[in-house]
Amino acid sequence: MSKQKLTLVKVGGKVVEEKDSLADLLGRFSKLEGLKVLVHGGGRLATAVAERLGIATQMVEGRRITDQGMLEVVTMVYGGLVNKSIVANLQALGQNAIGLTGADLNYMQAVKRPVKDIDYGYVGDIVCVNVDELKMLVEKNVVPVLAPLSHDKNGQMLNVNADTIAAEAAIAFSKYYEVELVYCFEKPGVLENPDDDDSVIEKLTHSEFKDLQAYGAIHTGMIPKLDNSFSAISRGVSRVRITNIEGLQQGGTTLAEV
Amino acid sequence: MSKQKLTLVKVGGKVVEEKDSLADLLGRFSKLEGLKVLVHGGGRLATAVAERLGIATQMVEGRRITDQGMLEVVTMVYGGLVNKSIVANLQALGQNAIGLTGADLNYMQAVKRPVKDIDYGYVGDIVCVNVDELKMLVEKNVVPVLAPLSHDKNGQMLNVNADTIAAEAAIAFSKYYEVELVYCFEKPGVLENPDDDDSVIEKLTHSEFKDLQAYGAIHTGMIPKLDNSFSAISRGVSRVRITNIEGLQQGGTTLAEV
Repeated sequence: MSKQKLTLVKVGGKVVEEKDSLADLLGRFSKLEGLKVLVHGGGRLATAVAERLGIATQMVEGRRITDQGMLEVVTMVYGGLVNKSIVANLQALGQNAIGLTGADLNYMQAVKRPVKDIDYGYVGDIVCVNVDELKMLVEKNVVPVLAPLSHDKNGQMLNVNADTIAAEAAIAFSKYYEVELVYCFEKPGVLENPDDDDSVIEKLTHSEFKDLQAYGAIHTGMIPKLDNSFSAISRGVSRVRITNIEGLQQGGTTLAEV
Repeated sequence: MSKQKLTLVKVGGKVVEEKDSLADLLGRFSKLEGLKVLVHGGGRLATAVAERLGIATQMVEGRRITDQGMLEVVTMVYGGLVNKSIVANLQALGQNAIGLTGADLNYMQAVKRPVKDIDYGYVGDIVCVNVDELKMLVEKNVVPVLAPLSHDKNGQMLNVNADTIAAEAAIAFSKYYEVELVYCFEKPGVLENPDDDDSVIEKLTHSEFKDLQAYGAIHTGMIPKLDNSFSAISRGVSRVRITNIEGLQQGGTTLAEV
């Protein structure tokens, strides 16, 4: 018995924060066939709003330190400004979108990351995902738009990495669907030469990735994304692609277990 | 054939913006029997955030003028900060809440208010409400938490008065349910003497309201709320109550058509 297909697109970086590229992305996303889910970031906009509010942004190894003030900013920016802008624009394209955080329908629950060397503040590590209500919605042609926020089920909102939300949601949906997870960002895929956009690696296996990584040939910013992706594949996701807007339908780098 | 009961509570003012009173309200709300929906405001917090961002708040006759900057603020504050705080706190109380604007599921559509004497900016007048998907959710014991925001189905978010959202949603749900609409605010009900909280009018008919209004005995701030309420009753809502947190279950002023 073959499962129905579901495409989960994660979009981040400038793509989501510039009006023209967001419109381009949503136009292409709306034309994808079948069931679909969109996950968005919004970090740069959060940084900009925080700055206007006089809140300093602290980053450690590319991760945002989320104190109380910053948590309020990301709740406003990710959960409000970015999420509702995407939802309203998808509705204009005839897509019945619904914007959600992990607290909504309690579809994703997290715990505040334990403090070891670094106190990340109100940053969440995901502990469980339940997409039963989301399944009911997508089967009514509703398009969930997931913000990178969750909660601890004790009333505390938590900031969660958008790539992680995408991977965990994709894994949870894999119970019911044949899931393709697409990471859409500025680059056309995983590049053999970071300075050459024509050097896209079309297919990358886990062992090839590990070899390239050992060789220092993978851009450090790509490593967590690729680790996340291969982990998602090993946990049930059918296919992961890394691409830019133009490749949304079928371009970029396809990751495969072997 | 008697309809199932649904309680729609609108909460605004200080009740929603102070941590202790919000906790008290949500605790009592979570104990209400049967299907329920919560509608919230958040105007004071929006004003405070706007001020921190250097955006001036302009009010005309108690209505907020919503320029582009203020629209972004209310989208962040109503759709993000206030809405998700309520959702996370309800989840902690075992209520399966979901936060929504009119754009989400396109459950409520508005048009930008036409400019006559005053240009209100991005303020919406509601043109249609469709609660079919919300019905499916509430029947799964999901509790919708509605922010005072809508959209025009052309990609534009709009600021909508929370009392109006509550009345229009209550009317739409009346097609399926016996709806009680409860306006929960600082005062214990409609007061015969605005300075005496013990002077609650327990029952108020439309003609009594008109008489009191002609006599100048109704506080001006209450008049739109009462007009909205009687309009909701004439359009199918079974019962409207105006009360404070303590009266949520059964206190305050009950409005009746005759």
